[in-house]
Amino acid sequence: MVKVYLVTSNRAKAAEIISALAEAGITAEIAPIKKLEVQSDSLEEIARVAAESLPPSNAPLVVEDAGLFITALNGFPGPYSHYVYKTLGCRGILKLLEGVEERRACFKSAVAVKMPGGEVEVFTGETWGVITREERGDKGFGFDPIFQPEGSAKTFAEMSLEEKNLWSHRGKAVRRLAQWLLEKYSAEAGGR
Amino acid sequence: MVKVYLVTSNRAKAAEIISALAEAGITAEIAPIKKLEVQSDSLEEIARVAAESLPPSNAPLVVEDAGLFITALNGFPGPYSHYVYKTLGCRGILKLLEGVEERRACFKSAVAVKMPGGEVEVFTGETWGVITREERGDKGFGFDPIFQPEGSAKTFAEMSLEEKNLWSHRGKAVRRLAQWLLEKYSAEAGGR
Repeated sequence: MVKVYLVTSNRAKAAEIISALAEAGITAEIAPIKKLEVQSDSLEEIARVAAESLPPSNAPLVVEDAGLFITALNGFPGPYSHYVYKTLGCRGILKLLEGVEERRACFKSAVAVKMPGGEVEVFTGETWGVITREERGDKGFGFDPIFQPEGSAKTFAEMSLEEKNLWSHRGKAVRRLAQWLLEKYSAEAGGR
Repeated sequence: MVKVYLVTSNRAKAAEIISALAEAGITAEIAPIKKLEVQSDSLEEIARVAAESLPPSNAPLVVEDAGLFITALNGFPGPYSHYVYKTLGCRGILKLLEGVEERRACFKSAVAVKMPGGEVEVFTGETWGVITREERGDKGFGFDPIFQPEGSAKTFAEMSLEEKNLWSHRGKAVRRLAQWLLEKYSAEAGGR
């Protein structure tokens, strides 16, 4: 059984990652470590630097960084989505888009893993959709009530955790991590 | 003659710091180093970590981090003012404040110096003012056209560099640094 540790202080995010990993047969729990978060326009760089700066461990350590990139706002709030959510909330985004017809947005996730040997790998996932005209739903977290993925009639906040994981940027990135981990460990087991 | 090196890629900011230091008799030029910028709600922490992670040097190395904290927006854009300026611009801030009577805002600066011995000190400056109803002026940089300090009829962007330094958060923080440096070097010279 592969087991990994998550380095995050966001419990809602951790729940999504733990559920997506569990579907692939991987166990995960939160490690009580604080990660280094640099300022960068690139989620991949933020996740990679965070993973590289983690202490040595006997198990894989996983970090994730995500952001909502709104086309009409030149990618805002992007890597600073958490801070923007805390200060402006969904209402601030809706106000910025008042009278704006171009509603496209992309939720992006970068998942980085630091292996016991020190190797760092980064996996990404993207989901395109639109910013709705009003908040809908009370599940999920952050900007979920105003993001409706392409092909769905629901916002992320109207979906169960499992349904959101099927659609979401984070679910996609975590499934890529899971596949990589399973291949790595089965190769190691086969090589013994 | 005391000489320091600035670690910044923002030439407009560097010009203000060089001018304020020159008035105190301190020479400064830009060092071709990239600084580490962490994500934090605290400018002091961002500046301190950046200074601590600089390489060893024979001269004092100076970094500065600044942000515009708007009361009605819970401190937004704060430490992420540069990114928010790049994506939303002054117009985005004015749109967020449409119909909002509470216009107060505070520009904050944190200047950190790393001394040749490795010691790091942080100096801060604050200037309160209001967010104007429209952009005024074309000097300065960033959100200067929409910030009018208390007691002035001009925005920062309507002031010369020297006049802005008299009023600004950055001018205040840099003058505190200059005073500290001059005392430190005169004490050392006196102790010889």
